[in-house]
Amino acid sequence: MISSLVFNEAGLLPAIAQDAESGQILMVAWMNAEAFEETVATKKATYFSRSRQRLWRKGEESGHVQHVKDVRLDCDGDVILLSVEQVGGIACHTGRAHCFYKKLTDDGQWLDAEPVIKSPDQIYQR
Amino acid sequence: MISSLVFNEAGLLPAIAQDAESGQILMVAWMNAEAFEETVATKKATYFSRSRQRLWRKGEESGHVQHVKDVRLDCDGDVILLSVEQVGGIACHTGRAHCFYKKLTDDGQWLDAEPVIKSPDQIYQR
Repeated sequence: MISSLVFNEAGLLPAIAQDAESGQILMVAWMNAEAFEETVATKKATYFSRSRQRLWRKGEESGHVQHVKDVRLDCDGDVILLSVEQVGGIACHTGRAHCFYKKLTDDGQWLDAEPVIKSPDQIYQR
Repeated sequence: MISSLVFNEAGLLPAIAQDAESGQILMVAWMNAEAFEETVATKKATYFSRSRQRLWRKGEESGHVQHVKDVRLDCDGDVILLSVEQVGGIACHTGRAHCFYKKLTDDGQWLDAEPVIKSPDQIYQR
């Protein structure tokens, strides 16, 4: 299973989380072998945080856990696709439903095209 | 516009192509700055081929061009999401509709879960 995965020179590969119901792409993060194995074993999305250099159990602080319904691998084995149920309806650390909220306009600007559902201060109780 | 993009140490960032109609994730490839700018200018998905180390105008050999309907950027600026119309209904070089055809089974095997629509020999006329 793990032997089919092609990790990059840092031992990571990108993983896409897609909402199982709506098909919305929620976020992209990275996995090392351990994160992948934990994701499969627990059926909760687990990534490797490049900034913190440790396993990141999605929702560990926010509560916004992703329950994994399906795991896919692409043709060349270097990208994972998770179909997930997003607890709380918020995947992004900015408090939006998903991370892809910057939309390119016809005049070449990035427009914030999705509302903040819950402020990060509330999510992370800082 | 381009200044908002966060490229990795190789000058690349991942780009996801999602079918504009079905929401199916078709493929993930990489873009450098030039590929991104050409994608926006031509409204046809253009990637950077890491194996060939050159611009890859998707469909240049196969005819399976991706017409770009929407361009999104994620919260930390390091992943692009394209909403596309996939010409020919085939995104994958294996002749399948999309690249994420390997499905993880309950017993930990990768199952080829999508049919080959057209053989690569036919697509690339080798």
